[in-house]
Amino acid sequence: MEERTVFFLSDQTGVTAETLGHSLLTQFSAKKFRQVTLPFIDTEDKARQAVRTINAVRKTGAPKPIVFSSLVQHEYREMLKEADGLYLDIFDVFLEPLSAELNEEPSFEPGRAHGMSDIEAYMKRIEATNYALANDDGGVSRNYDVADVILVGVSRSGKTPTCLYLALQYGVYAANYPLTDEEFESGKLPDFLVKQKHKLFGLSIDPERLQQIRKERRPIGKYSSIQQVRFELRESEKIFRRYGISHIDTTKFSIEEISSRILDSTGVERRVRP
Amino acid sequence: MEERTVFFLSDQTGVTAETLGHSLLTQFSAKKFRQVTLPFIDTEDKARQAVRTINAVRKTGAPKPIVFSSLVQHEYREMLKEADGLYLDIFDVFLEPLSAELNEEPSFEPGRAHGMSDIEAYMKRIEATNYALANDDGGVSRNYDVADVILVGVSRSGKTPTCLYLALQYGVYAANYPLTDEEFESGKLPDFLVKQKHKLFGLSIDPERLQQIRKERRPIGKYSSIQQVRFELRESEKIFRRYGISHIDTTKFSIEEISSRILDSTGVERRVRP
Repeated sequence: MEERTVFFLSDQTGVTAETLGHSLLTQFSAKKFRQVTLPFIDTEDKARQAVRTINAVRKTGAPKPIVFSSLVQHEYREMLKEADGLYLDIFDVFLEPLSAELNEEPSFEPGRAHGMSDIEAYMKRIEATNYALANDDGGVSRNYDVADVILVGVSRSGKTPTCLYLALQYGVYAANYPLTDEEFESGKLPDFLVKQKHKLFGLSIDPERLQQIRKERRPIGKYSSIQQVRFELRESEKIFRRYGISHIDTTKFSIEEISSRILDSTGVERRVRP
Repeated sequence: MEERTVFFLSDQTGVTAETLGHSLLTQFSAKKFRQVTLPFIDTEDKARQAVRTINAVRKTGAPKPIVFSSLVQHEYREMLKEADGLYLDIFDVFLEPLSAELNEEPSFEPGRAHGMSDIEAYMKRIEATNYALANDDGGVSRNYDVADVILVGVSRSGKTPTCLYLALQYGVYAANYPLTDEEFESGKLPDFLVKQKHKLFGLSIDPERLQQIRKERRPIGKYSSIQQVRFELRESEKIFRRYGISHIDTTKFSIEEISSRILDSTGVERRVRP
């Protein structure tokens, strides 16, 4: 399979160029891509170094690299356009129509491209993260009154990373509670959760996938046996039905997608915007 | 200040359209933007609903909304282009030159736009998250041999969210250790950290900013007094110097930027690509 080198250029972290590039590259499944991020290109020296890095690819006889750029400053963009690659630049393409429509000149100032450094947003995300940590895995505080959402599901169904992602990315207060033998035996949720029924959201997962994930943690024993995994998932689905808890199958989704689908399905508002 | 409505359209989570849009919008500081994400537009019905939502803005007499789209499917994109807004579409602009260069037809298949759902990447991120949790705040496991990086800094300098972000986003094993009275009195780091000196990375922060953050947690008392905050930061910087620990001032940066700068500065490789 042909391997193409892809560069993501930025005067900031490179997240914008990467996100844009990934969306486009997934449309081409016959290629293998070697991905290189060149962040913080904010001096002429670094711009020149980036040009050299890109040109070095061609000298090995490899095909033309693809270059996604979110560089803001005109002079560096002009330098990078001269490099030997297919140059795709979000500012070249979108800034002009946007400027015309808004009837405002762009500032061309770097450094605010991920304008997230304001203290209020930062604190909201930190507080939400602390909340998620204190209310992880049925955790110590059980401070469910202020929760935006409470995830329920069996061990390793993805509750913890999803809660942390919701907190870090969106400032959402997400708690989680594991379904275990206690719930399976009675078929019931504890009273303090039933009181918060409207906030509950269930995570389910394909049994084979769950077994695979659990085996990474404990390769042998009941915990990662297919019988146990099937039993727990069957029982947890009964509980979802009994209490009318919306739920999604996380098998095919990334943490981002699970988080986004939960917000979409519950209508919980983001407290910060990434 | 004029308020413009901005829509982010996607058949997936909307993260791509949002990230792209934010980078561009920060170039226009004289405007206020009302941001609305319309994710999971994957049926004709939802596309039609999105058109109605966009058109409703104009009917209130507001100026033309800006529409960032990462919709993949041709028919939905055509429908949305008819809506009354400035339509900026990443697929319209970049797909053709990319396809020509790669000499491959795009699949036009949605659902892989954030192609992160493969199990290997998912597990790496989960394992890294579990690692960060177990090694948070000088935490229980102190399993520093496998750490990629160990963050050190005073309470509330941003260690925990940064470690979690590094884990969730990049699958990086990030531990953190708080600098407290013990270190300030001796001016020394504990031996188990000195052994890992090459992995240490320091977080510093502006005293006023730190005081503000601490006051959110404990409004009164020594912990959030400016004297104490100044003392701790001065002592922690002495420790950074003593051991030659690279460090950054997190005051002006978002969690994403701090994380990205740490990777850039340390050369730690990402285990997964977002």
